[in-house]
Amino acid sequence: MERALIGKISEYEGKEALIKGRVFNIRNLGNIVFLVVQDYTGTIQVVVDKSIEVKTGDAVFITGLVKKDARAKSGCEMKGEKVEVVSKNIEELPIDLSKDDLNLNLVTLLDYRTLSLRHPKVQAIFKLYDLLLKSYERAMRECDFTEIKTPKILGSATEGGANFFKVKYFDKEATLAQSPQFYKQMMVGVFERVFEVGSVFRAEPHFTTRHVNEYIGLDAEMGYINDLYDVTKTLNIVLKKMFEEIKKDGQSYLDLYNIELPEVLDEIPCIKLAEIKKIIKEEYEYEIPEGADIDPHGEELAGKYAKDKFNSDFIFITHYPWSDRPFYTMPCKDNPEETCGFDLLYKGLEIASGGQRIHQYDELVANMKKKGVRAEGMESYVDTFKYAIPPHGGWGMGSERIIKQMLNLESIKEAILFPRDVKRLIP
Amino acid sequence: MERALIGKISEYEGKEALIKGRVFNIRNLGNIVFLVVQDYTGTIQVVVDKSIEVKTGDAVFITGLVKKDARAKSGCEMKGEKVEVVSKNIEELPIDLSKDDLNLNLVTLLDYRTLSLRHPKVQAIFKLYDLLLKSYERAMRECDFTEIKTPKILGSATEGGANFFKVKYFDKEATLAQSPQFYKQMMVGVFERVFEVGSVFRAEPHFTTRHVNEYIGLDAEMGYINDLYDVTKTLNIVLKKMFEEIKKDGQSYLDLYNIELPEVLDEIPCIKLAEIKKIIKEEYEYEIPEGADIDPHGEELAGKYAKDKFNSDFIFITHYPWSDRPFYTMPCKDNPEETCGFDLLYKGLEIASGGQRIHQYDELVANMKKKGVRAEGMESYVDTFKYAIPPHGGWGMGSERIIKQMLNLESIKEAILFPRDVKRLIP
Repeated sequence: MERALIGKISEYEGKEALIKGRVFNIRNLGNIVFLVVQDYTGTIQVVVDKSIEVKTGDAVFITGLVKKDARAKSGCEMKGEKVEVVSKNIEELPIDLSKDDLNLNLVTLLDYRTLSLRHPKVQAIFKLYDLLLKSYERAMRECDFTEIKTPKILGSATEGGANFFKVKYFDKEATLAQSPQFYKQMMVGVFERVFEVGSVFRAEPHFTTRHVNEYIGLDAEMGYINDLYDVTKTLNIVLKKMFEEIKKDGQSYLDLYNIELPEVLDEIPCIKLAEIKKIIKEEYEYEIPEGADIDPHGEELAGKYAKDKFNSDFIFITHYPWSDRPFYTMPCKDNPEETCGFDLLYKGLEIASGGQRIHQYDELVANMKKKGVRAEGMESYVDTFKYAIPPHGGWGMGSERIIKQMLNLESIKEAILFPRDVKRLIP
Repeated sequence: MERALIGKISEYEGKEALIKGRVFNIRNLGNIVFLVVQDYTGTIQVVVDKSIEVKTGDAVFITGLVKKDARAKSGCEMKGEKVEVVSKNIEELPIDLSKDDLNLNLVTLLDYRTLSLRHPKVQAIFKLYDLLLKSYERAMRECDFTEIKTPKILGSATEGGANFFKVKYFDKEATLAQSPQFYKQMMVGVFERVFEVGSVFRAEPHFTTRHVNEYIGLDAEMGYINDLYDVTKTLNIVLKKMFEEIKKDGQSYLDLYNIELPEVLDEIPCIKLAEIKKIIKEEYEYEIPEGADIDPHGEELAGKYAKDKFNSDFIFITHYPWSDRPFYTMPCKDNPEETCGFDLLYKGLEIASGGQRIHQYDELVANMKKKGVRAEGMESYVDTFKYAIPPHGGWGMGSERIIKQMLNLESIKEAILFPRDVKRLIP
């Protein structure tokens, strides 16, 4: 007999069906036993004889008659005639999945990851993450971007600095990609518009609620732009499409967190860094520390301002100082102390960083020199700019941060199936 | 003025338009100069005055009148009035892009990757790769699979053996994922059906036309199966959908390689290894070496047999010996010397490997012991099987091998933007 999916069980009303799933719960009423059986499409109540040996958590195949039951969510219940336990729980679950909230501390939640994920509310995070990946890919293709995959083992560090992991690569030493930055820029010269969904590795020793050492970056780069606003406008369009799709297909998961996703504005507010610093001081009497581009509390207040003033969950902050942005960022024509770089905040947390890049070879080489960046190992990147790379820009976006902010999760690690931090390599 | 895409230039007939793109070719006829300008949507001929300074390869913005021209592919040509060179070629291109075929050796092709990719025939490979990624993701979602992303830095090697890269992870030693095998199996207990598109790292010292050390794996795992044929049938459905979509959207790229993609059969032939060995001996008088599961020449002949006998580019070979398959592969009930493992060949090359896995804890532990696999570092994987993981199976598929076979490329490295092999870390 073909498997009947529980979510479509009403199609089998009055007929025999075979369901396959996990026993989520058991209620024993003496002579009669009720099993709640769950598959990936839904749950159903199955009445079975008390003689049947089955335990919570077991994986079962059940054949039986499907009957109408107005009280049931699926509209039906099943009279289980044949119950086959195809995989047995051989140990008591160490956590209680039957509560509405797991209420585990982060360490326990992650240590028991393969079990805590069985909880509907935890699982919902990753059903939304699945939608996020889907909607990004679709939005990017609708905007004519070509998907690329670039190497993660590199001959030399992309972004420089000390925040890279070393790999022993046969008899050579290599590093793990801190971003697909160089590759996506080089590919603008070929495909004009490219995007990548891929692993990003950062050897940052931070142990915070918003950092991890491995994450999935949603990257993009586009050519023939006029200025950085061509990039922010495109990201705005992409976000709008993504949130529409997530809202459409993910409401049942959002409901578990009481989230009503607002529409992304057609024009997300876009404010210069110098400007927002002034505003934060005036509106909230908070002075962003000297030297810092903007500190986490300043970001929060910028997010608050966007919400209060524009009713927007998002805000672009632009024109970060030259000293704070990487060497490939385009300096402003009218003020070389500022760059055409931007950050995108979502509810007061940076979720994306981007900008216009330098596309002229001479300018790039000069800026590297000025920044003290060694050209060694970067020849193939730098040389590409001898061959007329068009004006371009792009972004790198942290996929997990979007989900963290969307659901107001305490830590980004809750939004990653198996997060990696300074202390955690397992599971 | 808004940018006009060259692919849609006929909409601007009789009007002024602004195009942005690269000068692909120049024909100088004395007083008059013809530029062939290319953007990511097409090419157009632009007539400009001889006084305009522009070189092949330059990135330009051109404003001008669009006129009907029946001889042109786009149906139009442009009279260029204002030509702005926004990025200049400052060095002669080291390779000639104007020929129908580049005819470069593999080393040169890859050394000049960012330029050789500008050639339409080379670029076509990655437009098809883009379609491959798109079609896999869509087919998997249509089959109810949830997309997951699993970590690539691991506390211990997934598949064991010596073929893993070591990473210095703060004060610990870690390894790069040889596959998402453990994680996708664990996630069957949560989502039932999962897929992942992600980086795979193999420290194999082979230097061949079908191996690289980093590639993109198209992985999947599904629960509540009856046997391995539930897995091969699902992969069959997925391949059929993928090839239909690639054929539909990619014909112009396939044409450059004179490829007519045949339909994937509803039932790809599925033959046991022992059987295909006999057939190859009888039909082609080739004896597969003792001990080897099947050697590359044997695979080629199995592919030839599938084509000759079933008119199929694909063939599943099943029931590989226990000694050749990893410890998590389900042994056959009727013959424990054989497993429920399979390979999928495309035109005689293995492109996927999969099978049914062991889902019972005791059986898994016993098989690890029998294989001499150390349980150390695998506890969180092995322990998951105490909690009723349903019968399941899946596959790992090499994305780049599919494209290699589809286009009959000589080396898999031609199907990777920036391949990694024993000798190559750059670009």
